[in-house]
Amino acid sequence: MKEIIKPYRKDSGISYTAGAYATIELLLTHPDWVESVYIHSAYSGSPKIKELCAAKRIPVHFGDHCFRRINQKENTYVLAVFQKPSVPIRKKASHVILVNPADMGNLGTVIRTALAFGISDLALITPGADPWHPKTVRASMGAIFRSRIEQFPTIEEYFSAYPGHCLYSFMLDGQYELGTAEIPIHSPFALVFGNEGGGLTSEYHEYGYTVKIRQSDQVDSLNLASAVAVAAFTFMNLKM
Amino acid sequence: MKEIIKPYRKDSGISYTAGAYATIELLLTHPDWVESVYIHSAYSGSPKIKELCAAKRIPVHFGDHCFRRINQKENTYVLAVFQKPSVPIRKKASHVILVNPADMGNLGTVIRTALAFGISDLALITPGADPWHPKTVRASMGAIFRSRIEQFPTIEEYFSAYPGHCLYSFMLDGQYELGTAEIPIHSPFALVFGNEGGGLTSEYHEYGYTVKIRQSDQVDSLNLASAVAVAAFTFMNLKM
Repeated sequence: MKEIIKPYRKDSGISYTAGAYATIELLLTHPDWVESVYIHSAYSGSPKIKELCAAKRIPVHFGDHCFRRINQKENTYVLAVFQKPSVPIRKKASHVILVNPADMGNLGTVIRTALAFGISDLALITPGADPWHPKTVRASMGAIFRSRIEQFPTIEEYFSAYPGHCLYSFMLDGQYELGTAEIPIHSPFALVFGNEGGGLTSEYHEYGYTVKIRQSDQVDSLNLASAVAVAAFTFMNLKM
Repeated sequence: MKEIIKPYRKDSGISYTAGAYATIELLLTHPDWVESVYIHSAYSGSPKIKELCAAKRIPVHFGDHCFRRINQKENTYVLAVFQKPSVPIRKKASHVILVNPADMGNLGTVIRTALAFGISDLALITPGADPWHPKTVRASMGAIFRSRIEQFPTIEEYFSAYPGHCLYSFMLDGQYELGTAEIPIHSPFALVFGNEGGGLTSEYHEYGYTVKIRQSDQVDSLNLASAVAVAAFTFMNLKM
């Protein structure tokens, strides 16, 4: 059976990886999520994908026909269709919280960067970019498969589920300056970042510590992923 | 006269900003580079662009026809056509050096992030992504207009032009760990980063200090812009 891969739909329980890198990450970490793998005749990469599928008895489809729909914009030669997971984040781990992130590329990069600096549990306050969209998965370079992502309609619902985390909200007018010794660090912590356009609203001053990242007056604001990078890196180094 | 904007060409001396934000940044910082500004009938943003053009006697063209060619992929409603500058970086300022960066989005984000952390002089070792491509300019959010960019065919030519900088090359096997107190900081410095795929070659061990950024073994490597963010942020804080 050689089905055509249908365009991704947010309300479906199914997504797919586009590209060999994320596909291998998925097969290594969660082969049980994978329904099937598709390989295009133009794929010239390693045989690792076929070997992993054989070992886990995952069906592999060959052929170019099935890529027709999804390859209208860019070329993907390997993909894995998978069931979107529903795994809660961990109570004892530190978290990154993103409030209404808008851009899938940014979200994927944040997932990858947070994981690089030791934070693999992310809370997303919706509405926002879809973490399971193939674009987000691709931008994360498959890091999403080594992370846990939980979505909440409001920050209050996050607080109800995880009351024990000390919040550090990153704001242009934060009370503490990142990188200075004065910030009291309590673990587990949650580093909170607003939307790319507007940042966090002033209510976040009520929730815990607020932190600013010193930056030149030559730029309006930091890129979201860059802000998460310096925050997670600094907290990782302060903590240990 | 209502010309159609032609697609960008690397070998042309002309580029353009796509979008209001970068257009305003250009008009504020280098109105003398601007040849003309185009405004689409769907543009509903602030009158600031028209005011800046009037003050500097820059011709403004109205009409949708001229956007026809460049709006095949995404919608741009304002743009400024400008002469690409040729401005050297400064001898006494610290630098970021990117060796063969591949992706225009990454390059633009690096320019914006470096500027946010006080580094506005970037050396690019070619071949690599074109800093003056409209995509790079857009990804920089116009930060490129507040920076200086100089391109060199080899790192040796950079050394000939700027022999006084202390090099810190970021490598997975760097001798010093970023964020620890042991790194000797000499100003002006140059923070050096390799290509997204392969990083720096081992010859960079010969050129000065090498630095590694501690990261989880769960990721293969850091996103280039995230690496520049933590490095520039940390050096800015160590220096002051």
